[in-house]
Amino acid sequence: MDGAPPPASPTGLSAYVAVSQLLGLTLLAATGAWLGRYRGGVAWQGQLQFNVHPLCMVLGMVFLQGDALLVYRVFRNEAKRSTKMLHALLHGLALVIALVGIVAVFESHRAKGIADMYSLHSWCGMAAFVLYLVQWLLGCGFFLAPGASFSLRSRYKPQHIFVGIALFALSIATCLLGITEMLLFNIRDSYSQFVPEGVLANTVGLLLVAFGLVVGYVLTRDEWKRPPLAEELALSMDFKTLTEGESPGGSQ
Amino acid sequence: MDGAPPPASPTGLSAYVAVSQLLGLTLLAATGAWLGRYRGGVAWQGQLQFNVHPLCMVLGMVFLQGDALLVYRVFRNEAKRSTKMLHALLHGLALVIALVGIVAVFESHRAKGIADMYSLHSWCGMAAFVLYLVQWLLGCGFFLAPGASFSLRSRYKPQHIFVGIALFALSIATCLLGITEMLLFNIRDSYSQFVPEGVLANTVGLLLVAFGLVVGYVLTRDEWKRPPLAEELALSMDFKTLTEGESPGGSQ
Repeated sequence: MDGAPPPASPTGLSAYVAVSQLLGLTLLAATGAWLGRYRGGVAWQGQLQFNVHPLCMVLGMVFLQGDALLVYRVFRNEAKRSTKMLHALLHGLALVIALVGIVAVFESHRAKGIADMYSLHSWCGMAAFVLYLVQWLLGCGFFLAPGASFSLRSRYKPQHIFVGIALFALSIATCLLGITEMLLFNIRDSYSQFVPEGVLANTVGLLLVAFGLVVGYVLTRDEWKRPPLAEELALSMDFKTLTEGESPGGSQ
Repeated sequence: MDGAPPPASPTGLSAYVAVSQLLGLTLLAATGAWLGRYRGGVAWQGQLQFNVHPLCMVLGMVFLQGDALLVYRVFRNEAKRSTKMLHALLHGLALVIALVGIVAVFESHRAKGIADMYSLHSWCGMAAFVLYLVQWLLGCGFFLAPGASFSLRSRYKPQHIFVGIALFALSIATCLLGITEMLLFNIRDSYSQFVPEGVLANTVGLLLVAFGLVVGYVLTRDEWKRPPLAEELALSMDFKTLTEGESPGGSQ
């Protein structure tokens, strides 16, 4: 296969991925604009520490998590192991950024004497973060560390994919809850008069939903799943016969 | 095939469906308990008209919508046309109940002088309802009315399935937003003290998420998809050859 051009991407995939990235970047910009224009900006110290929370959660738990899910579609002609590493690295980065966002809200609550973990937003958010961490650890254990057999990986993979997409959806729903909480705590009386902050924050919510829908569509469309490369298929049979263990094949 | 016992359901499917129904009924009971115990109950006239809204939306847009999605898994050995009719009827009933819930909130707002359609909850909810109605009309047009060709149905079906699951997820997210709005409008000052109403309403939120996850898992698990019955496969070929039109075959 050396020297042969890589197979072309399926029709439409690149356009949908481009739209997802455009929506994701617009989402980040709109979140920044909301916090900068109407909430005083972002800082680690003082009153503005709270604002680190929404920025980090949208960046980590939505944008980076979504892009980590897309790598098997975008880098469909790269070696499976490199794509796996990128998938794990992006999710790892998302987890670190989300952790910074969680620390920010707990510290901000402590400074202001506000109770923690009483709201539906906090319950959903903590569940999403803890399960996302567990999913990442299990993913590394099953698919990156040596030791898991071919059959164990095959049985775990569908669960890993379902839980991954479900946690992405739960993360987006949790962000929508956070937007509603922030608006009702800050502009409760003027929200119903369609003030610019309310309209902008609602738009951030719609962008979150739109990003989730486009990423979800790209991930679940059958024809766009990553096919095993020719050399992976050959290797897969050899590995299976020799070791009953690792197989780099199979669509993801 | 006459007289032969129907094929058994795949292992685990019945258990997951039973869990989904248990979660769904618990969700309805918990919603009723919240409205009855802490919000004064439900009535079409007067102050309590608002409470018709959450009850109808959870019943229509979540419980019935979820069950309508499950019919192809639960009635996997029934004739395709009967299952389709049931799928359309349950979605139709869900739409009617949701419409009652929407009328209730608009009338309640008018009586109290509250503005409509300013919140993220209302934007997401109206989008979900309108798209759900469009999806139902398109589904009836493509799959129940005569006229749509076999190839047109085959091309539309994956889009119908993706949009169906996405709207179910958006409906659940919108209910979570509604719970948060109700709590922050009614018990804003005591919510952070873990008062029983707050804990119960948060639990309703977790039940919504759990119902969505179990239904989503049943729907997306490959081995649980409805296989075409033997007589459908034979008919499918005949129909296709004869008419290039209708085919009752294909897994759903």
